[in-house]
Amino acid sequence: MDNPSYKEIEKKNTPHWKVKVHEIIFEADTKWGKFFDVVLLWAILLSVIAVMLETVESIQVNYGEALFVIEWFFTILFSIEYILRIASVGKPFKYIFSFMGLVDLLSLIPTYLSLIVVGSHYLLVIRTIRLLRIFRILKLTRYVTEANKLKNALKASAVKIVVFIGGVIVLVLILGSVMYIVEGPKNGFTSIPTSMYWTIVTITTVGYGDIAPLTILGQSIASIIMLIGYGIIAVPTGIVTAQMALERNKIKEITTQSCPECSKEGHDLNAKYCKFCSAELNPHHNK
Amino acid sequence: MDNPSYKEIEKKNTPHWKVKVHEIIFEADTKWGKFFDVVLLWAILLSVIAVMLETVESIQVNYGEALFVIEWFFTILFSIEYILRIASVGKPFKYIFSFMGLVDLLSLIPTYLSLIVVGSHYLLVIRTIRLLRIFRILKLTRYVTEANKLKNALKASAVKIVVFIGGVIVLVLILGSVMYIVEGPKNGFTSIPTSMYWTIVTITTVGYGDIAPLTILGQSIASIIMLIGYGIIAVPTGIVTAQMALERNKIKEITTQSCPECSKEGHDLNAKYCKFCSAELNPHHNK
Amino acid sequence: MDNPSYKEIEKKNTPHWKVKVHEIIFEADTKWGKFFDVVLLWAILLSVIAVMLETVESIQVNYGEALFVIEWFFTILFSIEYILRIASVGKPFKYIFSFMGLVDLLSLIPTYLSLIVVGSHYLLVIRTIRLLRIFRILKLTRYVTEANKLKNALKASAVKIVVFIGGVIVLVLILGSVMYIVEGPKNGFTSIPTSMYWTIVTITTVGYGDIAPLTILGQSIASIIMLIGYGIIAVPTGIVTAQMALERNKIKEITTQSCPECSKEGHDLNAKYCKFCSAELNPHHNK
Amino acid sequence: MDNPSYKEIEKKNTPHWKVKVHEIIFEADTKWGKFFDVVLLWAILLSVIAVMLETVESIQVNYGEALFVIEWFFTILFSIEYILRIASVGKPFKYIFSFMGLVDLLSLIPTYLSLIVVGSHYLLVIRTIRLLRIFRILKLTRYVTEANKLKNALKASAVKIVVFIGGVIVLVLILGSVMYIVEGPKNGFTSIPTSMYWTIVTITTVGYGDIAPLTILGQSIASIIMLIGYGIIAVPTGIVTAQMALERNKIKEITTQSCPECSKEGHDLNAKYCKFCSAELNPHHNK
Repeated sequence: MDNPSYKEIEKKNTPHWKVKVHEIIFEADTKWGKFFDVVLLWAILLSVIAVMLETVESIQVNYGEALFVIEWFFTILFSIEYILRIASVGKPFKYIFSFMGLVDLLSLIPTYLSLIVVGSHYLLVIRTIRLLRIFRILKLTRYVTEANKLKNALKASAVKIVVFIGGVIVLVLILGSVMYIVEGPKNGFTSIPTSMYWTIVTITTVGYGDIAPLTILGQSIASIIMLIGYGIIAVPTGIVTAQMALERNKIKEITTQSCPECSKEGHDLNAKYCKFCSAELNPHHNK
Repeated sequence: MDNPSYKEIEKKNTPHWKVKVHEIIFEADTKWGKFFDVVLLWAILLSVIAVMLETVESIQVNYGEALFVIEWFFTILFSIEYILRIASVGKPFKYIFSFMGLVDLLSLIPTYLSLIVVGSHYLLVIRTIRLLRIFRILKLTRYVTEANKLKNALKASAVKIVVFIGGVIVLVLILGSVMYIVEGPKNGFTSIPTSMYWTIVTITTVGYGDIAPLTILGQSIASIIMLIGYGIIAVPTGIVTAQMALERNKIKEITTQSCPECSKEGHDLNAKYCKFCSAELNPHHNK
Repeated sequence: MDNPSYKEIEKKNTPHWKVKVHEIIFEADTKWGKFFDVVLLWAILLSVIAVMLETVESIQVNYGEALFVIEWFFTILFSIEYILRIASVGKPFKYIFSFMGLVDLLSLIPTYLSLIVVGSHYLLVIRTIRLLRIFRILKLTRYVTEANKLKNALKASAVKIVVFIGGVIVLVLILGSVMYIVEGPKNGFTSIPTSMYWTIVTITTVGYGDIAPLTILGQSIASIIMLIGYGIIAVPTGIVTAQMALERNKIKEITTQSCPECSKEGHDLNAKYCKFCSAELNPHHNK
Repeated sequence: MDNPSYKEIEKKNTPHWKVKVHEIIFEADTKWGKFFDVVLLWAILLSVIAVMLETVESIQVNYGEALFVIEWFFTILFSIEYILRIASVGKPFKYIFSFMGLVDLLSLIPTYLSLIVVGSHYLLVIRTIRLLRIFRILKLTRYVTEANKLKNALKASAVKIVVFIGGVIVLVLILGSVMYIVEGPKNGFTSIPTSMYWTIVTITTVGYGDIAPLTILGQSIASIIMLIGYGIIAVPTGIVTAQMALERNKIKEITTQSCPECSKEGHDLNAKYCKFCSAELNPHHNK
């Protein structure tokens, strides 16, 4: 995130206080930078807990005012922090529209919005995402790497998963309609959307039991839906697992170039000659 | 699906309007073909949503007539489309009995059937399957490939999965009967079929809770059934995953021979020349 | 199961009717043998369905007597079949104490037992296991092979799975007791066994909802139990999957012999010389 | 756990009774040592069952006093055993602060504590952990090895799993708050903590049904939460499985070198001689 060589150049042209503030707020290498981040994390955690507790009626009755004060205290604090971030960073817009920048902003809005729209301040829990900053303090780039690996494996499986989810949705639509016809409104399947909701509850093996089939035929179809749901969980699991195993073993990677003479493809990254016609491959092609 | 060379010949012998209509309805490469497909998909989506909304009582009361009109409008539209498809295609019967052809027909019948059988028009949701046409517009053959890979992996595992499901069904039958004897009708296990339904609800970890064991013995057996269900999910998952890992690795198989000149290894089964030094590989080595 | 060369010898010394009956009852290669097996499977299926239907009250009231007759009819039929099997087989005791022999016997007892103990005839569903004979008719040795592969993979993972189940049981005991202390009898956790039952319902993600925590602390612990249950399903799945992938790839198998000179172990099945000291290995050791 | 050579030295300097007691209590190789361990395991099992039964009201009413006596009997017995263990072991503090030593102590405390705090003696179920001693009797070091393998695979996946759980918790917080705003206290979502509890119940596919969404919007979001929960189970499963497959393949690694004499390949990394022709392998080839 922080390119040091670029920063070196930047520092020469920026006032001292800006460099200092940037160092404290954006970095965690100096003593004060680390101290700031630790305090920030605790503040985020406390403010999120305060919002959560406010919704518990017995606590709201007794400590409502205190929680109200805490909420505004942290919101103003975070607002000041947000302004300082914009002021001290070299390219403010890049920060504002970065993922963390947007999260920082969204963590402030609900409180101000609550002056107009009642109840909106519960959205303050979005602040939780700010806790991701913890990775910077812990210097756990290892965690980031692992998160990236997970992301890669999921991204590589994305097309297969989209196909799978598409299939599940079509299944849910048809089975939901069938159950609506079979069980009908008198047994709790009041409409096709409700029936689809029940089908999702069943096929994902959640099974609330707020709606349950009562006819023999309905129970038979429900049994089949359950067995389908129980069985097809194997599919996304299989997709992701096979992908992850591949990520680990990535022994052979294939270059996309075709032989300059015989045009055949499928050469390995370390290949120097075409394995089909022995022509020399373009050495500059492989990165 | 569309063999171009075959079509070239066909076009010569077919009237111009037929070729034009075929191009628009069956293909998505021309401007009008694409436009037709996009309109079609929206029509399908809207008609399915209309059917779903019709079952929600509050909507039915207020907009029932409008939805009725919409349903008939789309059905007549799709009927015309269906007739045009048959008229414009070279070999009508091949289309009629193809998978998409049958789906197209089944998407029309329920509305007409609803004149005789009340409630049957809810089966119109079968139209959802027509949405598969989306893959043609998006030119996402990639999705089709992935769907085929999934299908292959599942087909290759089919025998193992049949054995597994057979085992689960026998288990459900026996455990269901045991629970019927143990808990009996007074605790909700009114018959062996009901008891089997409960066993499936439990073994697939759905757990509605509409029926639950009340005796100590029943709860003990239920605990065992749950642990079985929790454990054996590993079996189908294992089957599919191992198969998928195999599918992926199947792409490239490596021969064990080393190059007769540079002795380097790691050549593919289909390699004729060493990819490192261009020497000819021993053709008799690979079986 | 049937050793032909052994049977050839046997046939010479056994009366003709015995050979004939054995051929029909035990084999499925001749016309009559196949016919017998198909009839038998239908009889088993019908008798199991009859038992199941008998427990549905509305059917019992109307067709109770007919089902009673059907049950006795099939039981007497199967009894005759059982006696014929013993009479015609070469070594009766080997059959009687074989798995299928025991199942055949257990499929008869409940009906006779029902004369003494009321309700015991529901155990007739054990007859379902007899349906395994279907594999012989279909000549689906392929299915048996796949079933054996599944069995091997599960057997190879058995020790790991025992360790895992042991861990889950200890976890259930401790968490169940904690929940009993936290929630107590007033919230449905009436005793530690009941509390353990609830813990199993929760950890296997079944979740009936007949018992559910009501205190904040109880719900917090319940949340942790759920997350544990949700997470550790990965363990048996991982065990079985890794084993299955291994079964498929079984590239290298290790012999158990140690070198006659240096006593080191870990030699491959195809090894002729010790890989540590070059001494010749015992060629007769490897099967 | 027991280093024999170290023990040989120790025995010379310790009184005879101490050696004898140590042999009986800590080891399972001698006749008396094995007998002691078997008796101990039964005592643990009985005392845990006694605690469990005590909580069942009908049993408590009738056999309460007997169970009280049994509990104290076993506690005093285990106290004597604990003292003997400390007395006979060479380095008492090493034992006391070992895992099993702490478990032994924690298995005694609850009974004594129950004189002061009512209900605390239910914590006696912690004694279950003492049953781990069973592995020593059965000499099933195999089980310990497998348990270690499991532990290694889980440890190696730990970072990925922490990232995953972190993601789930943030998801639960945000979705829980959204559901609180959408459904509100009148539909059972009385506070954000309760709403988070419901989200965990749903995302782990447990689904008690004690709280269930009633609005269309709530049910739609719930459907999405279920599908997320159903889908992301693939992630921890994929992590652990890929790791386990790796662990297994780690055992034997094959060198790529071919024998300098017979050119055959497939030698293990630790091989010094060709296993086919006994020629010496190139020692510098293996890294």
